[in-house]
Amino acid sequence: MSSKTNTTRNDVLKHLEEIGKRILEDIGKERPPKLKIRVRSLSNTVWCPEEKILKLGPRCAVREFFNLRETRKFMQTVLMLSLIVRARREGDYPTIRDLYYMGKHTIEYKDLHGKLRRENTWETQDESDYIIQDIEVLTNLLREDMGIMFDAKGRMVGKVIIRSKGNTIDLSKMGVGAFAIPPNVGDIDIVDVDADYVLIVEKGAIFERLNNEEFWKKHNCVLMTGKGQPDRGTRRMAKRISEEFDLPVYILTDSDPFGFYIYSVYKYGSISLSYESERLAVTRAKFLGVSTSDIYRYKIPRKFIIKATDRDIRRARELLRYPWFQSKIWKEELSLFIKKREKVEIEAFSGFGFKYLSDKYIPEKIEREEFID
Amino acid sequence: MSSKTNTTRNDVLKHLEEIGKRILEDIGKERPPKLKIRVRSLSNTVWCPEEKILKLGPRCAVREFFNLRETRKFMQTVLMLSLIVRARREGDYPTIRDLYYMGKHTIEYKDLHGKLRRENTWETQDESDYIIQDIEVLTNLLREDMGIMFDAKGRMVGKVIIRSKGNTIDLSKMGVGAFAIPPNVGDIDIVDVDADYVLIVEKGAIFERLNNEEFWKKHNCVLMTGKGQPDRGTRRMAKRISEEFDLPVYILTDSDPFGFYIYSVYKYGSISLSYESERLAVTRAKFLGVSTSDIYRYKIPRKFIIKATDRDIRRARELLRYPWFQSKIWKEELSLFIKKREKVEIEAFSGFGFKYLSDKYIPEKIEREEFID
Repeated sequence: MSSKTNTTRNDVLKHLEEIGKRILEDIGKERPPKLKIRVRSLSNTVWCPEEKILKLGPRCAVREFFNLRETRKFMQTVLMLSLIVRARREGDYPTIRDLYYMGKHTIEYKDLHGKLRRENTWETQDESDYIIQDIEVLTNLLREDMGIMFDAKGRMVGKVIIRSKGNTIDLSKMGVGAFAIPPNVGDIDIVDVDADYVLIVEKGAIFERLNNEEFWKKHNCVLMTGKGQPDRGTRRMAKRISEEFDLPVYILTDSDPFGFYIYSVYKYGSISLSYESERLAVTRAKFLGVSTSDIYRYKIPRKFIIKATDRDIRRARELLRYPWFQSKIWKEELSLFIKKREKVEIEAFSGFGFKYLSDKYIPEKIEREEFID
Repeated sequence: MSSKTNTTRNDVLKHLEEIGKRILEDIGKERPPKLKIRVRSLSNTVWCPEEKILKLGPRCAVREFFNLRETRKFMQTVLMLSLIVRARREGDYPTIRDLYYMGKHTIEYKDLHGKLRRENTWETQDESDYIIQDIEVLTNLLREDMGIMFDAKGRMVGKVIIRSKGNTIDLSKMGVGAFAIPPNVGDIDIVDVDADYVLIVEKGAIFERLNNEEFWKKHNCVLMTGKGQPDRGTRRMAKRISEEFDLPVYILTDSDPFGFYIYSVYKYGSISLSYESERLAVTRAKFLGVSTSDIYRYKIPRKFIIKATDRDIRRARELLRYPWFQSKIWKEELSLFIKKREKVEIEAFSGFGFKYLSDKYIPEKIEREEFID
C-alpha cells in the first residue's frame, strides 16, 4: 500500500531529524556534541553462527566535535545528514554521487593566529561514500530507504503481484520483458506470490532465455537475476519474497569460485557491507549448482570443461578460509575444485541439447534436493 | 499483437530454411554448394552521408564448399544455421554461448591417404560468434529476431502502452520500478505513446533518480537508459519509439569523449556492428549534453571539474577523425575539449541543488534547442 510507504518515508525523516535535534540539544546545554557509531572495520565484522550471517560487532567509536582528530568526520557526518534530510523533505532522490557534489564546498576559517585557512568538506567521493555508510550504521536505515539512488541491475518475472506508488503490477504479465528491480525495494509492497520457489540465475543472458521459454510458468517459480555480483535491490527483493511468502531460493551460477562467491553474497552478505546483512541476506538461499561435482555427476564432455586459472585456485583457497564455507560439503566441493582444476559454464549443458538445462538439470536438482545449503 | 509476432517467427523460420533448401538444391543438381555473404571488414564499412549511418559496403565474398580455404567456414555457417533452425522449430531461445556449446564437436574423417584426422567444428566462442554475425548479414535478420538471446541492460518508463505475448503493459504503471527491455524488442508491439520526446540517460543511477522524481510524468517524456554503452535491445527500442511515434530523442551523458561516443553509437551505430545500423541506429537522436561548452556556459564550479586523462584526449582525437563527427559544432566541441582538457559528470549539476538537473538543465536545453545534431 502506498500509505505504508508514506508512513515509512515520514518515519525515516523523523528518525534523521531526531539525530540533528540531539546534537542541537547538546549544544544548547553546552555539552560537547558527539555521535556514537559502530566501527565498520574487518576486526569488528563477526560471523554469527546462529543467524548464519556476517554481522557488525558491538564495538563503537564516539565521534566528538571537540576532539581535533574527529572534528572533520563529525562535520562530514552532520553535513551528509543535513543533505539527506533536505532531499527527503523536498522529495529528491539523489545518487551517492549527487550527494558528493552537493556537499562538496570549501570552508574558510581563521585559525588561532588569525590566519585564513581553507578546508574542503571532502576531497573524493570515497570520503563522502564512507560517511553514507556511517550514517546507515548510525541510523540503522538502509541508504535506499533514505531515498538514496544507485544503479540497479536486477530483473524478475513470475506470478507475483506487487504494489508501488498506487500501481498494482502483475509480474507474470511482462510479455518478453521483465520487471526492472529498483534500488528502493522498500517502497514496494509484495501483495501476492503464487510460486513454489525462487530461482536466481547469475547470468542475465540465461535469465532472458528462461523468460522467453516461460520456464517460470511451466515450473511455477519466480525467476530473478542480479547479473553477476548482485546489487542491494536484487538481494533485498529475493530476501523479502522468500521471507514474506515462505519460499526456498535456489541460486544457479557458473561452476567456478566466482559463482560460488556470488551465491555466498546472496546468502550471507559481503564483508564490506556486513552491517547490512540482517536486511539483505537471503538466509534461505541454497546453491543449486553448477557444483564442481556436477561436472562429473552429469558427465560434462571434456571439450566443454575449462581449465581453472591460478587466480581461480587462489580464490577457492580464500573461500575455504571463510567461516561460511566450513560445512563438510562445501569443503569437499572446494577441495575437489582445487584438485581437479576444472570449471564449467552453465551453458555447457547446451552441449546435451538446448532444453537440457531447463527440462532436466534444474528440475532434477530441485526434485532430488541436490543443492548445497 | 501476438499474432503479428507469430507471423514474424514463421517468416524467420521460412527464411532460414530457404537457405538450406538452396544448398540442398545445389547438391541435388551436382552444383558446388556456396554461400554469398557481404564482407564485414573495416574496408567494407562505409559512412553513408545521405542516411547518416554507418553501413556495410556492397563487397561480397563467396563461401564455397569445394574451396579448401573456405570449407571450414562453409561447414560452420551451415552448422550454425541448422542450430538456429532447430531452436526456432522447438521454441528455444539459446544465447550465443549456448550456440557455441551446442555446435562444438569433433568431426572425424579420413584424408586422401586413409589417415584418420580430427577437426573441431569451432575452437573458441569468437569463431562461432563470427559465424552468427555472418548469418545476420546473409539473412538480413537480426540475431534477436532469430530468437538468439543475450544479456540486456535497458530500462524504460513513461506513458507507453506495449503488447507482448498477449499481455498489455502500461509503462507508466511500474511504481518505483521500470520495464526491463529484453533483447528481442521485435516481439513487442508498441501500441500507444503519449509523450513529447524520448530522454535517454547514460547512467543507470540517474535513471533511477529521475524515475523516482517522476520526471517523465512532469515533462511528458519517455525515460530510458542503456546503462553506459547500450545493448542492441535498448537501441532498437529507442529507434522504434522514435520512428513509429515520430518523436525526437535526446541523449544525456557525462561530458567526456566516452559520453560523446555513446551518443554516436545510439545515433549512427558502431563500427563493429555497422551491418545492423539500418535497424539499430536512432537517426533522430540529438546530443542534449553535457557538452564541453556547457561546462563554461553553466559556469560549473572549478571544484567539480575533472582533469581529462591522456586517454580521454586520445579518444577525442579519434572522434575528430570519424566522418560522423565532422559537423562544425562537433569539431568545435571536441577541439574545445582537447584545448581545455576538462570534463564533468552529469551529477556535477547537483552542486547547484538536487533539482537543478531535472528542473533547469534538461528542460532549458530542450526549450532553447541547445542540443547537437
